[in-house]
Amino acid sequence: MTPEACRIDGAPAATIPVDDRGLAYGDGLFETMRAVDGRIALWDFHLARLRQGCARLGIAPPDAAWLAVECAALLPGQADAVLKLLLTRGSGSRGYAPPHDPRPRRILMRLPAPPPPCPHGLRLLTCATRLPLDPALAGLKHLNRLHQVMARAEVDAAGADEGLCLDAAGRVACATAANVFARVDGELRTPAVEEAGVAGACRAALLADPAFGPSVRVGALSPQEIGRASEVFLTNAVRGVMPVASIDGRAIGTGGAATAARAALSRLGFAVAGT
Amino acid sequence: MTPEACRIDGAPAATIPVDDRGLAYGDGLFETMRAVDGRIALWDFHLARLRQGCARLGIAPPDAAWLAVECAALLPGQADAVLKLLLTRGSGSRGYAPPHDPRPRRILMRLPAPPPPCPHGLRLLTCATRLPLDPALAGLKHLNRLHQVMARAEVDAAGADEGLCLDAAGRVACATAANVFARVDGELRTPAVEEAGVAGACRAALLADPAFGPSVRVGALSPQEIGRASEVFLTNAVRGVMPVASIDGRAIGTGGAATAARAALSRLGFAVAGT
Repeated sequence: MTPEACRIDGAPAATIPVDDRGLAYGDGLFETMRAVDGRIALWDFHLARLRQGCARLGIAPPDAAWLAVECAALLPGQADAVLKLLLTRGSGSRGYAPPHDPRPRRILMRLPAPPPPCPHGLRLLTCATRLPLDPALAGLKHLNRLHQVMARAEVDAAGADEGLCLDAAGRVACATAANVFARVDGELRTPAVEEAGVAGACRAALLADPAFGPSVRVGALSPQEIGRASEVFLTNAVRGVMPVASIDGRAIGTGGAATAARAALSRLGFAVAGT
Repeated sequence: MTPEACRIDGAPAATIPVDDRGLAYGDGLFETMRAVDGRIALWDFHLARLRQGCARLGIAPPDAAWLAVECAALLPGQADAVLKLLLTRGSGSRGYAPPHDPRPRRILMRLPAPPPPCPHGLRLLTCATRLPLDPALAGLKHLNRLHQVMARAEVDAAGADEGLCLDAAGRVACATAANVFARVDGELRTPAVEEAGVAGACRAALLADPAFGPSVRVGALSPQEIGRASEVFLTNAVRGVMPVASIDGRAIGTGGAATAARAALSRLGFAVAGT
């Protein structure tokens, strides 16, 4: 990461002070965004989730207009890129207590766009790492991500493409870095994120789409149910819609739901190669 | 934090690259240690916990001798100080997957010793923030500490000294930054840390002490039980033994257990002013 591709509180820089609370405690939030031809896909949804996270954690949200300007400053000449924003509670002295006069720190990084997903669909592994039931933090894209790190390590060790994460109650929560949609018994379903998982920006956009959202039932989804799904796809804000080819080696069919989801994202201006 | 008081991988520095996984995901561990007259209290217990955390997270532990040398380099002229060590998985590219060739990063900071604890004992608040049941991470001093941040914010808002954290099952887990011991019905108890809480270095030292440890029963402790405790004290590796004066306004008596715990720590060479 070079200072040219990074802004800290708006200024070119690629290092942060060691007393940042994001480092000390994961005390902050992040957003990972796709930018095509200088335009950030799903911007409103990213911004809404960031604000919700700020409200839950008691961190002052950045000014949206300034943030847009800072993002734009990293995008000239970039046909396709990823922007990652970290918002931490800023520097602090030792101890968990939030500072009385916090100065949140914005860290904005430009990263390469990922390669297109495998055209044959993703091979999923059901991870042994379980996500704890954690209503205080569920849904947020906060910086406490050790479970995802552990689950993703399982995925890599198994040579799979992504991981299906169950919560401590044994329900399907999400993938390590994506939300899950499954057509089960003819009905399109996606797990709730009130107890575990992240409220993905792409998921939010799909659920808000007037043509697509009403077709989705949000609620508990069991491994048995997803095990008999006729179609499964993942979504995230960087890669869009990613069809799933198999779960734990069991092949999964294709269907029209992923196509409909892509159409919904396309209406929102989010269409990336290979999705 | 100045470079004089900080070492990163052994070299004076006070900033880290923004691509550090400790910042991105809380992907790392920490130890907070008291150093009196150049000697680090409970060193073996800190080292043991760090190694256990490294094994659980799959991070290569630092060489103990090198670490001791790095710590010593920050202590000349310091009669009483705190050393905080962060060990992250190091820099990484975007994505949860641990790097194939990780280079863990050691961040060592010297901080002022805290003032002595209140001689009249701590006033505790039972926090509304619950710690999730999380056997995968429980016990470790990892960098995913948002629950402690939220709980400590409650403590500050209430004007209390420390917070009693319950787990999601409603059992007493720990304080926000200390372990809990309570004499209940004549028996000294401390919560288990297999599902929530941190396996404190001071707690470990006390439980390992041949004269003190056998007097303690480790296991579930309910709010009702601690509510009728005749004596409660907290422990951590920076402040040692901290008697509790009240929980949620209910006064708690004093007793001999805290004195015995201090004697045990003193035998280990850990005796700080005010404890």
